[in-house]
Amino acid sequence: MAGIKDVAKLAGVGVGTVSRMINESGYVSIDTRAKIESAMKELNYTPNELARNLYYKKSGIIAVLVPNVLNPFFAQFIDCVEGELRRAGFKIMLCSTMKDVKSEAEYLDLLNRHIVDGVIAGMSSLDESEYSRIQKPVVALDRYLGEHIPVVTVDHKEGGRLAAEVLLANGCRKILHFRSTAEKKSLYHDRHTEFQKIMDERGVETYCYNLDWRRLDIEYYHQVVEEIFEKGIEFDGVFGVDRLAIECMNGLIRQHKNIPQDVKIVSYDGTYITEIVEPKISTIVQPIDKMAEASVQCMCELISGAKIKNRQIILKPTFRKGGTTV
Amino acid sequence: MAGIKDVAKLAGVGVGTVSRMINESGYVSIDTRAKIESAMKELNYTPNELARNLYYKKSGIIAVLVPNVLNPFFAQFIDCVEGELRRAGFKIMLCSTMKDVKSEAEYLDLLNRHIVDGVIAGMSSLDESEYSRIQKPVVALDRYLGEHIPVVTVDHKEGGRLAAEVLLANGCRKILHFRSTAEKKSLYHDRHTEFQKIMDERGVETYCYNLDWRRLDIEYYHQVVEEIFEKGIEFDGVFGVDRLAIECMNGLIRQHKNIPQDVKIVSYDGTYITEIVEPKISTIVQPIDKMAEASVQCMCELISGAKIKNRQIILKPTFRKGGTTV
Repeated sequence: MAGIKDVAKLAGVGVGTVSRMINESGYVSIDTRAKIESAMKELNYTPNELARNLYYKKSGIIAVLVPNVLNPFFAQFIDCVEGELRRAGFKIMLCSTMKDVKSEAEYLDLLNRHIVDGVIAGMSSLDESEYSRIQKPVVALDRYLGEHIPVVTVDHKEGGRLAAEVLLANGCRKILHFRSTAEKKSLYHDRHTEFQKIMDERGVETYCYNLDWRRLDIEYYHQVVEEIFEKGIEFDGVFGVDRLAIECMNGLIRQHKNIPQDVKIVSYDGTYITEIVEPKISTIVQPIDKMAEASVQCMCELISGAKIKNRQIILKPTFRKGGTTV
Repeated sequence: MAGIKDVAKLAGVGVGTVSRMINESGYVSIDTRAKIESAMKELNYTPNELARNLYYKKSGIIAVLVPNVLNPFFAQFIDCVEGELRRAGFKIMLCSTMKDVKSEAEYLDLLNRHIVDGVIAGMSSLDESEYSRIQKPVVALDRYLGEHIPVVTVDHKEGGRLAAEVLLANGCRKILHFRSTAEKKSLYHDRHTEFQKIMDERGVETYCYNLDWRRLDIEYYHQVVEEIFEKGIEFDGVFGVDRLAIECMNGLIRQHKNIPQDVKIVSYDGTYITEIVEPKISTIVQPIDKMAEASVQCMCELISGAKIKNRQIILKPTFRKGGTTV
């Protein structure tokens, strides 16, 4: 296999020049670059990237942790993040943390072992203290993990308010509210507090169903909705995440209820599945593309050595009307 | 930072023993392992993995190429593959090839650069010749890429036959058949040939819509279905991939057609979205979990140095009845 010396010889330049170009460690003129590139091509030379990474302690890989790839929110997030990272010159390593409780810690460890240059924590169930020990690039979604870890989040309080206002304007008087709980405090849950507060203030009756935060699977959602119907709970409005809102609508359709005449539905997240059902779900949309963009931007800043302290990027949710409200 | 010498000293063993244990390159007794581990812990020592990878030319990372993470088939595939790879001790690097035509070649190049140990090609648009040059572990999905590259596929001919039989048994006489075409020959397309052949033999009229294989997005599917309805094409049966089948059903529901009384629908793939709509779609299910399992198994064999020649693993599709057929 051809080495750097062969490339230098064929290009008629010094080894140091080739090295400067490969490692982007100094000026190389356009003409010289062209000569080196054509020599590399002719010799089928590929620089040993692992050796380069070892030297620079850079791998060009960012780990993205999500609870579950199948969840449409995280699928959309990964899709956007992958594109953004690619544009920034990074590759993505993917980890679903829900299948293996140890995996979150394991991926953080990859940072220390120089296998990844940074971690975007799409969901976190570790203690803040586990993160505070890490002095490497970490960006968090929806959760505060320490002053040196930037947080990308959405104004979920505003999201809760928007949902409440739509259901109130639709004249709902008894609302089924699917509340997610979580072991760790996530900013994502602010929507519930705000939604409930407004309903209480306006004297609107709510039935709160407390969900198990560890379950995101369709079987669980199906089971929850069955339970609601079996208990014979009456409601004229629904607020919950996309999948639950859809399960609920399907249950109502099977009971020959008319949507939106009999029951109004507003979902949270606004992922693509709200648009593949009939009628489409009215929803509070999280700006997933902007969240991905902001996460990658923070990551690039951290990697380039910027010191970021107490940064919180708060994006705005929006309401998208479907056919489940009037 | 503590080095291997410090660990050896504290554990009271030779440097060679520590090295053997770290690199799993020879026998180390259980007692000695325990001593070394506790010394590593005390000194907060982490072996430099990049250096180890460099030496062994192994990174422990497998790249998985899919056209689009958002497509539920590939989301489910990634989800399963990630779990299987994790169990086998690998991490997953993810690449959506549809966003960037150059990316497939770029990821193959990572093999040469020792950044990944193998590539699982969930979809491929490169020429077979590009793959035949690669002497590294590659496993392909649904496409023949050369005799040294194992293929994991489904008996799509059988899948096409199953779909045809269900629609025939349902008494359909005019079937809308969404055909995917592809620039490169994929085994996935065998279902269309078989389906069409059976319909032709049985004298059942079909309306074939030829899809643009480069488009997998919902906007496109929506547009296709709108076009069908605008043209006023009459049909009493539908065969197409999950998303198209769903779009079609939604269009029919908006036209106040009764499903399955007026029109029967059978989809292909059987991803989770066929179960979140009402009624659930009757579908030919690809065994995505088994495909992932077989892909990872082949990958492990290749990485362990096994020579695999002309291996094709063909899995069986099944029919899952939903509410869109009787």
